[in-house]
Amino acid sequence: MHVYLIRHGIAVSPELATSDRERWLTDRGILKTKAVAKQLVRSGLKFDLILSSPLVRAVQTAKILRDVGLSDRVEIQPELAPGGSIQAWLESWPTPESKSTPDSIALVGHEPDLSQWAELLIFGEIKHKIILKKAGTIGIQFPTSALVLGQGSLHSLIPPRYLQ
Amino acid sequence: MHVYLIRHGIAVSPELATSDRERWLTDRGILKTKAVAKQLVRSGLKFDLILSSPLVRAVQTAKILRDVGLSDRVEIQPELAPGGSIQAWLESWPTPESKSTPDSIALVGHEPDLSQWAELLIFGEIKHKIILKKAGTIGIQFPTSALVLGQGSLHSLIPPRYLQ
Repeated sequence: MHVYLIRHGIAVSPELATSDRERWLTDRGILKTKAVAKQLVRSGLKFDLILSSPLVRAVQTAKILRDVGLSDRVEIQPELAPGGSIQAWLESWPTPESKSTPDSIALVGHEPDLSQWAELLIFGEIKHKIILKKAGTIGIQFPTSALVLGQGSLHSLIPPRYLQ
Repeated sequence: MHVYLIRHGIAVSPELATSDRERWLTDRGILKTKAVAKQLVRSGLKFDLILSSPLVRAVQTAKILRDVGLSDRVEIQPELAPGGSIQAWLESWPTPESKSTPDSIALVGHEPDLSQWAELLIFGEIKHKIILKKAGTIGIQFPTSALVLGQGSLHSLIPPRYLQ
C-alpha cells in the first residue's frame, strides 16, 4: 500500500480572499501544479483515490491531479483541513465507499499538517524533519494494505523543481 | 549547507567481476544515471565537490555527475566504501584541500550505508526508514555550514523514475 501526501500549489495571499478557506491557486500556481502532475503521470504514478482537504486551493490541486490522469476519483476528507487529525481519519479508513484495499491513495492538503502526518505514518511521532514545498509530494509505502502509524517507509520526497 | 547522498547506478552482477570493488555500471546503468544527472542539472543543482566511494561503480557514477556539469571536482573518500564510518569522515571534514565552507556537496556511495548516513545526519540515529534506489538522491540541509549529526532536515528523496 502506497500513500502520497501532496501539498497544494501556490495560492493567493490571505488579504486577497475573504477567508483562508477560499484562497485559490494563482495562475503560476496552476501552471506549476500542472507541470508537476504531468511529470508524475509520466513517471507511472496512479492513485486509486485522491482525498482532498475541503479548502479551495487543495480541491483545485486535487482536480488538476485528477484531470491529468493520476486518478479517476476525488473525495473531500474534512480531516485534511489545517489542524485535522490523522487518528480521526485512520479510524474512518477505509470508508465503505472506498475500495476496501486500495493499492495507492493520495492525500492533498496543507503544511505543517502533511509533513507531520508523514512523520506519524513513518516514525509514529512528529520530528519536524521533513520539508514539503508547495506542489511537493511525499511517498510512503506500507508492508500490507493496513495503514498503521509507525509502519511506513519513505521512498520519495519530491520538490517541484525536479519535475519541471 | 546542503548534503546530497547519491547511490551508484545499476552495476554488473557479482559473478561477472573478480571482486565487489571492481563491479562496473551496466550499459543500462550508465544511460539511466546520465538521464538522472541531466535532470538534476536542469533543476538547478550544483555541487562544490563530489566525494565518491573508491569502488568502481561509485567512481563511474561520480564522474557521470561531474561530466554533465553538476560539479567540477570529484575526490575519493575511503569512508564511503561499504561499511565506512560517517563519524570518521566527519572528523576529517572539511579537509584542508576542500573549500573551508562549501555550500553543497554530494556523497556517492552504497546501500545500506547512504540511507543510514542520511538518518544519522537527520535524526542522530539509524531508523531503517528511508528507501534509496540505485541512482537515487537524498537531499539534506543544515542550518549552518557545520555538519552535525541530528541537525539536518530532509528536503528531497528522488527515485530515478521521476527524473526520466
